[in-house]
Amino acid sequence: MRHWNDIVLSVPVWLETWGQLNPDRLTEKQQRMALVIELAKKNLEQGGGPFAAAVFNRDTGDLIAPGVNWVVPGKSSLLHAEIMALALTEQILGDYEMAKHGSFELVTSVEPCCQCLGVLMWTGVSSLVCGAYSEDAEAIGFEEGPRLPDWEQKLMRRGIDVTRGVMRSNAIAILQSYRGEIYNSCLGVNDLNRS
Amino acid sequence: MRHWNDIVLSVPVWLETWGQLNPDRLTEKQQRMALVIELAKKNLEQGGGPFAAAVFNRDTGDLIAPGVNWVVPGKSSLLHAEIMALALTEQILGDYEMAKHGSFELVTSVEPCCQCLGVLMWTGVSSLVCGAYSEDAEAIGFEEGPRLPDWEQKLMRRGIDVTRGVMRSNAIAILQSYRGEIYNSCLGVNDLNRS
Repeated sequence: MRHWNDIVLSVPVWLETWGQLNPDRLTEKQQRMALVIELAKKNLEQGGGPFAAAVFNRDTGDLIAPGVNWVVPGKSSLLHAEIMALALTEQILGDYEMAKHGSFELVTSVEPCCQCLGVLMWTGVSSLVCGAYSEDAEAIGFEEGPRLPDWEQKLMRRGIDVTRGVMRSNAIAILQSYRGEIYNSCLGVNDLNRS
Repeated sequence: MRHWNDIVLSVPVWLETWGQLNPDRLTEKQQRMALVIELAKKNLEQGGGPFAAAVFNRDTGDLIAPGVNWVVPGKSSLLHAEIMALALTEQILGDYEMAKHGSFELVTSVEPCCQCLGVLMWTGVSSLVCGAYSEDAEAIGFEEGPRLPDWEQKLMRRGIDVTRGVMRSNAIAILQSYRGEIYNSCLGVNDLNRS
């Protein structure tokens, strides 16, 4: 007999301590990005990937949920930083459409990959703020996957504001300090023999 | 003090009974699609969306995990059928890269939206089998989101086999019987005033 339990995506327990040590509210994009970049650094120290994100209430500046790349420790390819922050926000709101509950901003240390771009589209988030460019992640061997070249315009046309390159050099510094596994690379996937 | 618990994506309990009543193993794509289309019909009756999916072991034909569109009852925009099936599979395998554990096929009643395309890319699934075309879902008001026009080729180039239009008319019949909410439509998103 087969059991299919609820899907549990693990959120690292140290995020709670991190939350206690950091401000609850940040009004400026720059402050929000600085927090997210510090979180990416912390995540590296904890064995995660060199990526972090967070969702803020755009009006009040309240930090709703952080997110870190926890793919390897959490054993799920869904556990990108943006997805953790967005899914935690939906869980806190108890809804699949955050736009019903206000205006929310996703701040991410690196531009979203094809997976995170797709996911953010359906969450109802209203603003995206990015640190490092996609090519900065690709420069250290991470892939962003196939995305539309005009993804920024596509988001804007859906009413999602996009701001790129905020504190880019600080976000790059975190990427460049990464010494862990480059998982799911194109090379790795194609090297496997498939039937 | 803020708590960020693990993310729990709910899997409907009736799937267990469904699993008991259906075969454990199906060797042909057509049989797999017939099962998935029946599951989409069942999901409609249970209050879900008109979409279903399943992951099979390509070599043995074993059904690893089903998936249904459970966005509205499960209160999460992540809960598309393909994501449920893929995330359950990763949970069962205990790994973020299913290609390490064999060759797996994702069978879906409708071609994947931008979110599911992005997600499947990083799971290590090796085959995608689709029923209805994207335009069939769009014909009833669901959006597929911004995707590359050559997404099929992009997947193939990564070593993911793609088969489209399997039992298309049966999959369309399920879509056309849907009378529920069309959530997260472009119109809905753009109608909201954003700061």
